[in-house]
Amino acid sequence: MTNLNKLKIYEARGFINPARVRIALAEKKALDQVEFVEVDVMKGEHRQPAFRVKNPSASVPVLELECGTTIAECSAITEYIDHSFPGVSLTGKTAKERAVIHMMQRRAEQNLLDAVGLYFHNATPGLGKDLETYQNKEWGEKQREKAIRLRLPFGSLECIILIRCWGNMNLLRGMTSLWQISPSLLDCPLQISPKSRFLGNVRT
Amino acid sequence: MTNLNKLKIYEARGFINPARVRIALAEKKALDQVEFVEVDVMKGEHRQPAFRVKNPSASVPVLELECGTTIAECSAITEYIDHSFPGVSLTGKTAKERAVIHMMQRRAEQNLLDAVGLYFHNATPGLGKDLETYQNKEWGEKQREKAIRLRLPFGSLECIILIRCWGNMNLLRGMTSLWQISPSLLDCPLQISPKSRFLGNVRT
Repeated sequence: MTNLNKLKIYEARGFINPARVRIALAEKKALDQVEFVEVDVMKGEHRQPAFRVKNPSASVPVLELECGTTIAECSAITEYIDHSFPGVSLTGKTAKERAVIHMMQRRAEQNLLDAVGLYFHNATPGLGKDLETYQNKEWGEKQREKAIRLRLPFGSLECIILIRCWGNMNLLRGMTSLWQISPSLLDCPLQISPKSRFLGNVRT
Repeated sequence: MTNLNKLKIYEARGFINPARVRIALAEKKALDQVEFVEVDVMKGEHRQPAFRVKNPSASVPVLELECGTTIAECSAITEYIDHSFPGVSLTGKTAKERAVIHMMQRRAEQNLLDAVGLYFHNATPGLGKDLETYQNKEWGEKQREKAIRLRLPFGSLECIILIRCWGNMNLLRGMTSLWQISPSLLDCPLQISPKSRFLGNVRT
């Protein structure tokens, strides 16, 4: 692949989804081949028209290709990274590998990442009044229950990303509430130590 | 690939997610190479221990490989189908194709299929009292608003699947409410006619 240095990733320091993309890049040893552009989410920059042109869903991260095409959604960006850089396969090679990895990825999102995110944004102060324009506390609490009930032994990459990222997000309020989800969230079978190759060079 | 006739798909007649997998198989001209097994969702068969062994998330469809491995999540099953059968590529070949298709798939799920499903299960009688053990009407209504606001011109495969499947589900109650989402849901740019190759041999 040519012009790798012209790939741009729009992200926000310390947020969990940008960290997932950085982990994928780290696995490919390609972190230094991408230009990162900070988006000031706390000031609502992601909801401004200039950013919505890149991603109508108004979320980070967004990958911008040299041709101008923009890719949103972590797992879609990971597909691009996995098929563009050499090294270990992240999304699988055989039909069975691809299907199993894709399924586990979706389960980790639905049962853990999305559930915890919905709890945070709906049943805690979340990102604050200016950004949390609608909250449904009951739904948030229900998602908290789901996260506790359904967190699966994913091999825990998603767990540890969650713990590391959210734990470091001192810009986020309501963190005390977040940890109340379950002390046992920390009991996930952490096959990956906090100092592992996954996180050593990933800014969270 | 060998032993294609030993693939099994557990599904439920008329539901939208099984139809998505059938469409993928139809595109690959492989509908007749899979054994379909009906799961009686209206009687809660998907929540019984025998089925949860195959899919702890208790949802259909589930693909069972000859080796016994089970794959849940529509998009994961589509990955398997796409990489196992010859013919048109469903998930893309280049890095950019894979990323764009994956992104649009996620947007179609989040903004349309999931949003409409959450509305149906939370703000209408849904599948009835026995199966809808928790409902949050306010959240359901919010998802209805989201579906109206965010439905995108996906090329509308997802739109037409939705309309066809849900329209045919006479086993589902509350359909009148569903159609109240927005008459303009029918205004989606239907690039695929109801008699297209996508739906001609797909049971919905």
